[in-house]
Amino acid sequence: MNIEMIRAAAKRLEGHARRTPILTSPFLDEIAGRRVFVKPECLQHTGSFKFRGGWSAVSALEPEARKAGVIAFSSGNHAQGVALAAREHGAPAVIVMPADAPAIKIANTRALGAEVVLYDRATEDRDEIGARLATARGLTLIKPFDEPQVIAGQGTCGLEIAADMQATGVTQADVAVCCGGGGLTSGIALALAADAPGLRVRPVEPEGFDDVTRSLASGQIMRNDRLSGSLCDAIITPQPGDITFPIMQEHCGPGVVVSEDDCLRAVRLAFERLKIVVEPGGAAALAAALFHPDAFAGDAVIAVATGGNVDPEVFIKALETTD
Amino acid sequence: MNIEMIRAAAKRLEGHARRTPILTSPFLDEIAGRRVFVKPECLQHTGSFKFRGGWSAVSALEPEARKAGVIAFSSGNHAQGVALAAREHGAPAVIVMPADAPAIKIANTRALGAEVVLYDRATEDRDEIGARLATARGLTLIKPFDEPQVIAGQGTCGLEIAADMQATGVTQADVAVCCGGGGLTSGIALALAADAPGLRVRPVEPEGFDDVTRSLASGQIMRNDRLSGSLCDAIITPQPGDITFPIMQEHCGPGVVVSEDDCLRAVRLAFERLKIVVEPGGAAALAAALFHPDAFAGDAVIAVATGGNVDPEVFIKALETTD
Repeated sequence: MNIEMIRAAAKRLEGHARRTPILTSPFLDEIAGRRVFVKPECLQHTGSFKFRGGWSAVSALEPEARKAGVIAFSSGNHAQGVALAAREHGAPAVIVMPADAPAIKIANTRALGAEVVLYDRATEDRDEIGARLATARGLTLIKPFDEPQVIAGQGTCGLEIAADMQATGVTQADVAVCCGGGGLTSGIALALAADAPGLRVRPVEPEGFDDVTRSLASGQIMRNDRLSGSLCDAIITPQPGDITFPIMQEHCGPGVVVSEDDCLRAVRLAFERLKIVVEPGGAAALAAALFHPDAFAGDAVIAVATGGNVDPEVFIKALETTD
Repeated sequence: MNIEMIRAAAKRLEGHARRTPILTSPFLDEIAGRRVFVKPECLQHTGSFKFRGGWSAVSALEPEARKAGVIAFSSGNHAQGVALAAREHGAPAVIVMPADAPAIKIANTRALGAEVVLYDRATEDRDEIGARLATARGLTLIKPFDEPQVIAGQGTCGLEIAADMQATGVTQADVAVCCGGGGLTSGIALALAADAPGLRVRPVEPEGFDDVTRSLASGQIMRNDRLSGSLCDAIITPQPGDITFPIMQEHCGPGVVVSEDDCLRAVRLAFERLKIVVEPGGAAALAAALFHPDAFAGDAVIAVATGGNVDPEVFIKALETTD
């Protein structure tokens, strides 16, 4: 895993992934007590940064493998990112989802051209189903984060941050990144280490699911006790990846932990001041920047808003929060 | 009013106004039956395209006049656009608003550094108050649309559409623009006539407030019967401007009229599929593109989402609409 892979991914993504802008608001600056720059990956195709990794992985396949197709396990953003990337490459995509996944997510993934295979969480083994399908059809598994070409794709977001922050003259700052398994976090960290060494990534996680923060503090991979029951579902994973963790250890500052309530308030402020739709897990970094100013130093902070795939009911709940 | 003024405004806006991207979604393409390209001006500073016109007008002033300051009548997007543009130029700004304007709009405009002067709609004459202040302090009035430098600023949005659509290879298409007094509509029309003559502007208005559509059809300026009572308040004006109307006559196709309900559904789809926050009036063009496909020809349509300054209650109402 190295910067050249990220630069190569950037070339493959050019004209396909959306180059998201940097958004700002004087109102957010005032809350945070410093300048706040937001990278809205919710505006990426399929509503999250996951399209970058999906495109990178599919485009890196040999023609034969691409023709055979890809498979992914996901009921969320990774599923949609892989599905659309595969469709635009003319590659078949099989997405394995639990049968009790929300109907709208199943429908969206199918609408993006993927074959959705449902399994019963109580009686069936997801990995076994996946392995059987992969073998029978020659499908390539695209893992959600612990996969070099996926990390390379997510890292392209970091190249853009480096270029755009240089244009604003901000060369020393923390970059808060909503962190699940660490694919985006480690990709951005590698990109910044190469192109903007004064910018340092800070992984941000929700309370109770702070595996990366604890792993970075202890120096070894630690697990979450539970894997469900959070509004920040998009960034909940069991533990940091074997590939992503060493990268984060080398390049990231300490993790920052935010509450679910912080995230909902950040969703509301992103609505009010930036006019973007962010899901609670995708607002964790912005929540850290706004409501945990002591966690950061300097006169600027960058926050990546990682995704916007949120149900209307949850969004309404966020709009109804008060300060 | 000519294209050179728009190009000059674009130079003055460079690095100050945000260059908004073009957003797309395969789900919207399917609803519309053709490719849909959305220009999200809700992502512009202060949440609407009005910042472009405000910046253009303030930056065009002679240093003396700028130092004395500017004045505007508005309780909405124009107020915030002028206030922020003036503050960033170090120019005092007076915004005259009715005393019964929503508290949040007054607070926002003050927070952007403007002096807000309130008047009683029942007993006081807004124009008289403005004229008195302007004379006493040497303030320059910045009209919301019928003002060449404001039109020039809004026209920069059209230059960006021309450049970005050329990059996508779309050279023949209609460009739906939410239309109030016609400042943005005429500015974009002039820009496209020069830089992308195959793209034609179509003004879009809400039912009951279709003064531009009727004026274009009849060949003479016609008024709206009423000026309030619409969720699309951002684009309600009494009649097209004396400067904007001839430009629209020369360069625009027929107007398109949409219902309030169309606009709310478009707000919901912009939330769901583009992850942007659009106000009902700012969603009129997208509503036309999605729900009035017969009004357009060809295999692509561009819709400008003009603003995102919407109260949470109205946004929630939109999210709760069903198909």
